[in-house]
Amino acid sequence: MDYQEIIDRIYREVQPLTAQGKVADYIPALSSVDRNNLGISVHHIKGEKYGVGQVNIPFSIQSISKVFSFTLAYEAVGEAIWERLGKEPSGTAFNSLVQIEYEHGIPRNPFINAGALVVADIILSNYRYPWREFLDFVRNISNDDTINSNEEVARSEKETGHRNAALAHLMYGFKNIKNPVEEVLDFYFMQCAIEMCAESLSRSFLFLANHGVVPYSGEALLSLSQAKRLNALMLMAGLYNESGDFAYKVGLPGKSGVGGGIVAVFPKNLSICVWSPAINEYGNSVAGIEALKRFTSYTEMSVF
Amino acid sequence: MDYQEIIDRIYREVQPLTAQGKVADYIPALSSVDRNNLGISVHHIKGEKYGVGQVNIPFSIQSISKVFSFTLAYEAVGEAIWERLGKEPSGTAFNSLVQIEYEHGIPRNPFINAGALVVADIILSNYRYPWREFLDFVRNISNDDTINSNEEVARSEKETGHRNAALAHLMYGFKNIKNPVEEVLDFYFMQCAIEMCAESLSRSFLFLANHGVVPYSGEALLSLSQAKRLNALMLMAGLYNESGDFAYKVGLPGKSGVGGGIVAVFPKNLSICVWSPAINEYGNSVAGIEALKRFTSYTEMSVF
Amino acid sequence: MDYQEIIDRIYREVQPLTAQGKVADYIPALSSVDRNNLGISVHHIKGEKYGVGQVNIPFSIQSISKVFSFTLAYEAVGEAIWERLGKEPSGTAFNSLVQIEYEHGIPRNPFINAGALVVADIILSNYRYPWREFLDFVRNISNDDTINSNEEVARSEKETGHRNAALAHLMYGFKNIKNPVEEVLDFYFMQCAIEMCAESLSRSFLFLANHGVVPYSGEALLSLSQAKRLNALMLMAGLYNESGDFAYKVGLPGKSGVGGGIVAVFPKNLSICVWSPAINEYGNSVAGIEALKRFTSYTEMSVF
Amino acid sequence: MDYQEIIDRIYREVQPLTAQGKVADYIPALSSVDRNNLGISVHHIKGEKYGVGQVNIPFSIQSISKVFSFTLAYEAVGEAIWERLGKEPSGTAFNSLVQIEYEHGIPRNPFINAGALVVADIILSNYRYPWREFLDFVRNISNDDTINSNEEVARSEKETGHRNAALAHLMYGFKNIKNPVEEVLDFYFMQCAIEMCAESLSRSFLFLANHGVVPYSGEALLSLSQAKRLNALMLMAGLYNESGDFAYKVGLPGKSGVGGGIVAVFPKNLSICVWSPAINEYGNSVAGIEALKRFTSYTEMSVF
Repeated sequence: MDYQEIIDRIYREVQPLTAQGKVADYIPALSSVDRNNLGISVHHIKGEKYGVGQVNIPFSIQSISKVFSFTLAYEAVGEAIWERLGKEPSGTAFNSLVQIEYEHGIPRNPFINAGALVVADIILSNYRYPWREFLDFVRNISNDDTINSNEEVARSEKETGHRNAALAHLMYGFKNIKNPVEEVLDFYFMQCAIEMCAESLSRSFLFLANHGVVPYSGEALLSLSQAKRLNALMLMAGLYNESGDFAYKVGLPGKSGVGGGIVAVFPKNLSICVWSPAINEYGNSVAGIEALKRFTSYTEMSVF
Repeated sequence: MDYQEIIDRIYREVQPLTAQGKVADYIPALSSVDRNNLGISVHHIKGEKYGVGQVNIPFSIQSISKVFSFTLAYEAVGEAIWERLGKEPSGTAFNSLVQIEYEHGIPRNPFINAGALVVADIILSNYRYPWREFLDFVRNISNDDTINSNEEVARSEKETGHRNAALAHLMYGFKNIKNPVEEVLDFYFMQCAIEMCAESLSRSFLFLANHGVVPYSGEALLSLSQAKRLNALMLMAGLYNESGDFAYKVGLPGKSGVGGGIVAVFPKNLSICVWSPAINEYGNSVAGIEALKRFTSYTEMSVF
Repeated sequence: MDYQEIIDRIYREVQPLTAQGKVADYIPALSSVDRNNLGISVHHIKGEKYGVGQVNIPFSIQSISKVFSFTLAYEAVGEAIWERLGKEPSGTAFNSLVQIEYEHGIPRNPFINAGALVVADIILSNYRYPWREFLDFVRNISNDDTINSNEEVARSEKETGHRNAALAHLMYGFKNIKNPVEEVLDFYFMQCAIEMCAESLSRSFLFLANHGVVPYSGEALLSLSQAKRLNALMLMAGLYNESGDFAYKVGLPGKSGVGGGIVAVFPKNLSICVWSPAINEYGNSVAGIEALKRFTSYTEMSVF
Repeated sequence: MDYQEIIDRIYREVQPLTAQGKVADYIPALSSVDRNNLGISVHHIKGEKYGVGQVNIPFSIQSISKVFSFTLAYEAVGEAIWERLGKEPSGTAFNSLVQIEYEHGIPRNPFINAGALVVADIILSNYRYPWREFLDFVRNISNDDTINSNEEVARSEKETGHRNAALAHLMYGFKNIKNPVEEVLDFYFMQCAIEMCAESLSRSFLFLANHGVVPYSGEALLSLSQAKRLNALMLMAGLYNESGDFAYKVGLPGKSGVGGGIVAVFPKNLSICVWSPAINEYGNSVAGIEALKRFTSYTEMSVF
């Protein structure tokens, strides 16, 4: 299959969609991103890479970082992680407090905000230099030493992130956050503020397409079974309240962020990242979703 | 791969689990089923079939029938079906009224009870002889003319099904049920009371493993894309509130019923039905879930 | 105090408000009522009566009937009634199903629809000729033998009352409705369709201003303590989701209906009924609320 | 009426109830209070006072302080206070986050925790020396200069008060808390930690029985209409989720705290405070509720 030709075609076809939707504007640093950006990067587990458009411009990965933090926490505590997290889809607004109350402080899954806060708390408890080790982990799996978090973005997020603060305090009360709330929030906002380009993001997800093993280094981050399970989690809950629709139309495990990035994997084959900053009402990139839908349609690469 | 050997092994391994859980007892006709039953049936799209245990004893398929009724309704109205149904996971109790109120009469997906009632309503509106055509459809895709609905079970279900009556009345008020509530309930309870054996159930799901085409007849029930989408829906919402856990541990699209049956498909390969009457707190067969978990573990046949 | 002068003044002052709000239009028989109607009727426990405007035109009393049915059921079973009903304010939409699910079939209080359905069920179980005895009771306490229910209204209500049907089925499932759902609904809709004029309504509430005793007949319907308690219930929950605001601004126990009637009592003194068909978003008469607010303001007759 | 005789009798009758219920134990400083304490204090607006038992031992007034803070905020901003607060009963758990989310940051009423946090925020914005002026206000209306807040209690409350922190952060996000969350919480916990004896508490509520005017000083804190409205609010929502039951059984506006105090007023007559530390599942003093029920029963002093 000629991947380059396919993504070139998709690039042309979805470019008009970059005019639709709205760039995230709850903090200044995000709202100033140029909505005309569009990049598609594909990495095959055998080593080839393909790209078109703005694949080397770093952008704010936001919720995509939840896959990285979950992986790191899962490595540390294994299946015990499920004592503090559910693995069911959320069914409600992605940052709702309601569910936390009804389910006594246990978030539905690691990809809603509440779940990611618990994951951050687990990292704080299980790593000696949590932030350093987290950043190294992300740089390592993406093979990109230039990656950093944007501290201004992290600060802005914290200033507007009162709902996340409410979630953290509530779960602290339920004893499902154990480190000081401030520290958990600081880690979480730093993690979301990581900036990566589409090419590095695509590369960083290769281990999920390759049964837990980083293909170019041979490093096993997760077992075969764990990697499959993480893919299942992404399929259930990776695109906020549009996860069902994404599974229906695209049919691949994926994770999105309000910075306009979406990464998806086709197990045993490849990972793909699309970046286009304008997002829909669910927080997902308009052009990104359409690009991935066309990709699985043209390549018949759905898991179903 | 020697499927017969694998399912024989699983049969031996999970048999002790038939002593766990509880046979559904909300109606007499279900509670009298012998909990020692255990049957596993596999059909490959190329024609081979494998079986072990009680694969020829008919049992009440209950919610598994929702896949059949959805397929028939989807054939009739196509993507317009989504004007009356969501395709997101439910996130709450499988027969809850709360969500219907908050979302103005639109059920979250076709596999919760509310969704299946809307599907029944669509069949009533789009087929001249709804029940006859539905039953013929089920007999046809399973290649089993002996299949029938148990009227005593249907009657008992109706007598205890006040929550379904409440759902139907509520959606009628929201104009998302258009036929008389009594008729919709009658159809729905008859549909759930269909009795099939594991072998016929396994065979009936082959079209979902074969991209919409019934392999032994060549009949195309759904397009490639529609079949994939139905698989995605099952993965998101096929096992009540345990769907996420099933996707996580088993990794296949599947559908369960409180009669103790679970059917799953591995796309482009095979379908498998396990039947063991005792169910867990979520309404899913205890031995059935474990059998399928082992099947995908031994065969590495997860979609992820 | 010159009550006639006071209500004449209020009549003039609030008449412009009859142009605000909207006449209930969910059934034809209600929507055809002339919105220009305005009537105020006061009865003192010592026997005097005062009236202005359309106080002798019968109108649909709707939810005001819940006070009558509760009184009859309370007479029959006493404090045991609280095994099947709460006495707390509802806090949510007046006909919501959510609360019934979370509180296992027990309605919050007798004045929400679910509560009134349970009350109807209690009457059906405790009176030999439920409808006959209920109608006689209403005629008796209002000293008006011409009172009847409008069967066309009852029929229309039933045809549109799917939410009430849903509530009844749900509570039947929780075993808090014991008679056939159809019978409970029929009784309930007949009860709501009773037509009375403002003067008769005002007179009928006198026993609540007179500690349980009908003043002109001396008949004790309730004990002193029971009458006070019923007043407390009305203050907490008599005006749907506007009950708190009514207590705040008017300060009297009262009960409203979507037909535009509101009846209130000032204990040890008088009862007052205002009728003006146009209602606000909460289902309460716009002019009626303002008239009562002015009444307690001019007379300083609030219970607080 | 011989009030002293009546409260002496009640004191004897309810003393056995001090053995029921449970002293609040979520912070050490509260759990160490002797459950055998029982005090009843009555003040008539004409100047007489009556007392029996431990009426001069200061205890933690907790939520009773919400009446004081609301009065101070209401004095400052008048009816504009309702732009930021509802006046309907809550209908759910007294510190639930659910309602705040669904109603966009507006608490149901000033007596649930969320409402009291908004009230604290209003005081912080409208008084130059908020804490000093609040404390002076409480001392002034109770004519007791010895009153203080227990800083150890306030500190302990803050350490365990994660749900209140969650509420405050959430409302800050909805822009219904405008001062820094930390300052609002500090004020709130200091306010709840005020310690007063039953006699001072009873005296401090006299202005609510006297139409807004402190009887012994003649100072008008609120207008007649405002005082009535505050009484209405207390009746609707003064005893957490037991408010309806209290209105039903006692029939007076009142406010309780988890320290075991309850204060009630009979308008135009008197105020009464009962203190007994052991509380029921709703957070209200077991002996206190029974004492007040008997008081209105023996004196027929219900507002209904």
